[in-house]
Amino acid sequence: MKTVEKIADMKRLRQQLTGDIGFVPTMGYLHEGHLSLVRQAKTENPSIVVSIFVNPTQFGPQEDFKNYPRDTKRDLTMLEKEKTDIVFMPSVTEMYPPGFSSWVEVEKLTRQLEGASRPGHFRGVTTVVAKLFNIVQPTRAYFGQKDAQQIAVISKMAADLDMNTEVIALPTIREPDGLAMSSRNTYLNPAERRAATILYHALTLAQKLWFEGERNAERLRQQMTDLIQREPLATVDYVSIANSKTLDELEIVTPPVLLSMAVKIGKTRLIDNIVFR
Amino acid sequence: MKTVEKIADMKRLRQQLTGDIGFVPTMGYLHEGHLSLVRQAKTENPSIVVSIFVNPTQFGPQEDFKNYPRDTKRDLTMLEKEKTDIVFMPSVTEMYPPGFSSWVEVEKLTRQLEGASRPGHFRGVTTVVAKLFNIVQPTRAYFGQKDAQQIAVISKMAADLDMNTEVIALPTIREPDGLAMSSRNTYLNPAERRAATILYHALTLAQKLWFEGERNAERLRQQMTDLIQREPLATVDYVSIANSKTLDELEIVTPPVLLSMAVKIGKTRLIDNIVFR
Repeated sequence: MKTVEKIADMKRLRQQLTGDIGFVPTMGYLHEGHLSLVRQAKTENPSIVVSIFVNPTQFGPQEDFKNYPRDTKRDLTMLEKEKTDIVFMPSVTEMYPPGFSSWVEVEKLTRQLEGASRPGHFRGVTTVVAKLFNIVQPTRAYFGQKDAQQIAVISKMAADLDMNTEVIALPTIREPDGLAMSSRNTYLNPAERRAATILYHALTLAQKLWFEGERNAERLRQQMTDLIQREPLATVDYVSIANSKTLDELEIVTPPVLLSMAVKIGKTRLIDNIVFR
Repeated sequence: MKTVEKIADMKRLRQQLTGDIGFVPTMGYLHEGHLSLVRQAKTENPSIVVSIFVNPTQFGPQEDFKNYPRDTKRDLTMLEKEKTDIVFMPSVTEMYPPGFSSWVEVEKLTRQLEGASRPGHFRGVTTVVAKLFNIVQPTRAYFGQKDAQQIAVISKMAADLDMNTEVIALPTIREPDGLAMSSRNTYLNPAERRAATILYHALTLAQKLWFEGERNAERLRQQMTDLIQREPLATVDYVSIANSKTLDELEIVTPPVLLSMAVKIGKTRLIDNIVFR
């Protein structure tokens, strides 16, 4: 496994690879969710590249960029076990040198949900992913379904800008009690960790009501919100029932539907979602 | 010479090419300026691709997108003579299908000069060039120095976003009387065509004053503006003496300097520039 910190070195290594390249962009502090992406990439491509880069431009000024968990040594051990070919781990100034001023932006899809709660977040995401795609030039890039809007936005960017990378979404990996894996789960104290299952419970409640025939989106939102609010450590940011392509909110639940939410557990903001197809 | 109208077909042809690719993006209605780019591309790359696409997103609502001159048959004859390998000439809906909503934007460098006079212009330019770079995947792309700010902006985009294409600027090609070649020169009636040399005269005046030792930027701007205003058919949009890297206006003329201007001759807006290195 090679580790590379410079863009020019990554590009040089890339030129030496032939055949398909699978790419998993991460912010590090890896968990089973990331590893499931790496494993799938491994089955579909002769070479795989993983990036570790906590991208400052996708964090708001009040957000957790500085405190975002980092453990590169542990990450590299995990990636070595998965037989990763190259780990690209640039510094912030390598990716954003002084005077950096070019941005990739997706309109419309970025207005709602995470885009509404985190202004500028997706501009940071699309810009860094466009850069990484140009540096790594992957055949396929793998993202977790937990960040559903991110996948929609990146897919739209890749399609609109004619990028030569296939964007692949893979299922959310969960803890045994249903909590979606996230590097941010490490922020939770034991009581918060127990409370955090409320996101998954709200999604399973919605699924049950849907199977029972509920088609009124506002009633579903309300039931989910009510359930979450019964958890004293939880504060709802949003609960959304939207068309999974346009991300427009629905009145009548008509597949394909993205049910998604952002909930603060204590000071930790968590997101989760399911899709009805 | 192959002509291609679909993005997928262009990408397929591209995959069959090996070795360096030279690329000349144009809006068609070709003149010697374009051909000089094609010829230089030809000397530096085994394969060359020329695109012809009048890009609607770089025209303002009051600008000349609809009336921009087009003559594809003549363009293709000229490109055939230059032994162009592939001409990519997509339709507007091929490049901007319904729902298109992704943009590439360069900040700072796009605020002044053309960016100030033509809001949104450079967002259209950078977006279409990013798309074309992804579709054609050229080793080198060639642009005329006449559009000096465009070159600065595209170079900045390519550097910031780690694109794999070298951006190359080649000298402005001029008519015997000094008028910079431009597809828009075709708009000029005979009297306007004669008046249009005033842009070049203003640049040569500045050069003369510079050689004589003038270092005060505002006096240079004033002398140039005065000269242009003596031409009854001319209206100054801007006359700029700026650092050629930052495009910030100068007080003292210190190389590298971009002297640039936009002038309306009748209803036709023309630009020209020279650089002191």
